[in-house]
Amino acid sequence: MIQKPLSATAFAPATVGNVAVGFDVLGFSVGTVGDRVTVTRIPEAGKVSITHINDNIIPADPTKNTATAGLVQLCSDLRLDFGFQVDIQKGIPIGSGMGGSAASAVAAAVAANAVLDEPLPREKLIKYALIGESVASGSMHADNVAPCLYGGLTIALEIGKDETPTIIQVPVPADIICVLVHPAIRVETREARAILKPELSLKNHVQQSALFAGFLAGCYGNNVSLIGQSLSDILIEPQRAHLIPGFHAVKKAAIEAGALGCSISGAGPSVFAWTSSRSVAENVRTAMVDQFMKANHHSVEAWISPVSPKGAYLL
Amino acid sequence: MIQKPLSATAFAPATVGNVAVGFDVLGFSVGTVGDRVTVTRIPEAGKVSITHINDNIIPADPTKNTATAGLVQLCSDLRLDFGFQVDIQKGIPIGSGMGGSAASAVAAAVAANAVLDEPLPREKLIKYALIGESVASGSMHADNVAPCLYGGLTIALEIGKDETPTIIQVPVPADIICVLVHPAIRVETREARAILKPELSLKNHVQQSALFAGFLAGCYGNNVSLIGQSLSDILIEPQRAHLIPGFHAVKKAAIEAGALGCSISGAGPSVFAWTSSRSVAENVRTAMVDQFMKANHHSVEAWISPVSPKGAYLL
Repeated sequence: MIQKPLSATAFAPATVGNVAVGFDVLGFSVGTVGDRVTVTRIPEAGKVSITHINDNIIPADPTKNTATAGLVQLCSDLRLDFGFQVDIQKGIPIGSGMGGSAASAVAAAVAANAVLDEPLPREKLIKYALIGESVASGSMHADNVAPCLYGGLTIALEIGKDETPTIIQVPVPADIICVLVHPAIRVETREARAILKPELSLKNHVQQSALFAGFLAGCYGNNVSLIGQSLSDILIEPQRAHLIPGFHAVKKAAIEAGALGCSISGAGPSVFAWTSSRSVAENVRTAMVDQFMKANHHSVEAWISPVSPKGAYLL
Repeated sequence: MIQKPLSATAFAPATVGNVAVGFDVLGFSVGTVGDRVTVTRIPEAGKVSITHINDNIIPADPTKNTATAGLVQLCSDLRLDFGFQVDIQKGIPIGSGMGGSAASAVAAAVAANAVLDEPLPREKLIKYALIGESVASGSMHADNVAPCLYGGLTIALEIGKDETPTIIQVPVPADIICVLVHPAIRVETREARAILKPELSLKNHVQQSALFAGFLAGCYGNNVSLIGQSLSDILIEPQRAHLIPGFHAVKKAAIEAGALGCSISGAGPSVFAWTSSRSVAENVRTAMVDQFMKANHHSVEAWISPVSPKGAYLL
C-alpha cells in the first residue's frame, strides 16, 4: 500500500480572462507567475484552517477565502474523516485582473486532492475551484479557473446541473507571445462587474460574436493575421476602460508597437496584448509600461510569456 | 485572343443562415436545391433587363430584384459599354428562409462575371451579391451570400469599408448530414427581422457566445458530440418560433429522432437539423415532415444533404 503524503504544495498560474472576444467564456494561462498553496492533513474531521497568508487583505475565514471555500465543500461532499490546514503564498497581485482568486482556488484544490486517500480526477476538481472563485467574483464562471487548471487557451461552456462546465482547449499558434502589464492599482471584480450594463444591442452582439468566431478560426487555422483582425472587444472594454487610468494610451501604444490586439485582462487593471514574436513582444511591453508610467502609476509590473500549455501542478 | 461567351448560366445553392448559434454571421450551403440565372450581354451600355422570371412575385424592376440590383452596380463600377439581359429560374421557394435572394444574387453575379471581358476574382463578386441580397432583406449581411458563393460552412466577419466581408470557411465533420424541411408558408425576412427585440441581456449574450464557440470548436475538432451539445439558439429562435406553426413539435421530434440540433433556417419558415449519419437523417426528416403535416401545413418539402463544399458554379 502506498503511503499518501500528509502535505502537498501546488502551483497555479495567472490567467487572462475574457481575452477581449469571449467575455466570461474564454481565458488563457500565463505560466510565469502564479500562486502556491500548501495543504496539510489535520486530524479534525471536516475542519479547514488557514495557517498563513502572505497578504493581509485576503479573508482568513475559510468559508470566505477563495483558496479554502472549495475545500470546505470537498470535506463535506467526501465526508472526510480528516481536515486541511492551508498555507497560501500569493504570487499574483490581489485585484489585478490576473485570475488570482482562481489560482488560489485551483492550487488549493490540486494540493488537497494530492493528500486524499483516493484522489479525484482533474475534471472533478473544477467544481471546488469554482466555489472558491465565486467567493471572490460573486458569480460562478470558469473563464479563469479552466485555463488555470488545464493550461492553454480554453472555452468554458455553461455550467450544467452537475456543477461541471465543459472545457475545451483551443490550439494557439506557436508564434503567439503574450504581454501582460499590471499597474499597481486595484480593481474589485465585483465592482467591475456591477458597472456593466445588463443589456446590449443585438447589433453589438452580432459584431462581438463575429469577432469571437474570427478569433477562434484564427487559432484553429493557425492564422495570425485573422487573430489580429478579430482580437477586439467592442462590448465590455468601453465600459471598463475608465477604471484604468491611461488605458487608451496603453492600448494605442501596444498596437502601434505591433501588437495583434490589446485589451483588459479579466476585470482589470492589468492589460494584455498578443504579439506574433518575442521581439515584437518586447517592444510592446516597453511601450505599454511607458504609457502606464506617463499616466502616473507609481509601479508597473510586466511579463512576457507564450500562452502556457501547462495548468496547475504539484511541486 | 479568347472570344468571351455572350451568355452564361450559373447555379447557386440554397443556404441555411444563422445556423442556430451564429445569427447574421454563420451559414452553410445545401447543394441539392438552388437558383439558376442566365446572363446575356446586350449592346445597351449599363442597361440591365429581366427577360424571364419563373415566379410572378419577384420584382421585375432591375434595381429592386435581388438578381439584378448588383448587376446595375457592376455596370456602373466597371463603366461597361454593354448591358445584361437576365433570365431567372428560381429553384428555391420564395420566402422560405433557404437563402433564395442570396442565391439569385450570387448566381447573377457569377454568370455576369463570366461574360465580362476581364472577369473579376470571386472575392470581388461578393459585393455585388450583397447588394442584391440587401434589396430583399433590408440589411447587408453575408451569412447566406458567403456560403452560397464559396460553399461549405462559413463565418462572415463584419463588412469593412471596402464593402468586402472577410469570409472564413469552417471545416465540417464528414459524418454530418443536414436535413432541411420547408413548410409551404411564407415568412418575409424584413418582418422576421422587425419582430426581433433590439436588445438582449448580457447573460444571454454570454450563453449564446459560448454555444457559438463550442459549435466552432466541435467543427474544427471533429467532435460531433460537442456540436450536439452546442447547436442551440437561445436568442433568436424563441422570438421567431411563433411565425412557424408546429415549430416546437417539429424540433422536439427531430431531437427525439436523433438530431444533434434543430433550429430555424434563416428567417424561416424552413427548419434545419444536423445529424451524424444518413440513416439518422432519414428518420429525422420523416419525423419533422410528420409534425409539420400534423400542424396543418398543406405541403411540406424536405431535403437531405451533407454540407455542400461547393458554392455557385457555371453550368
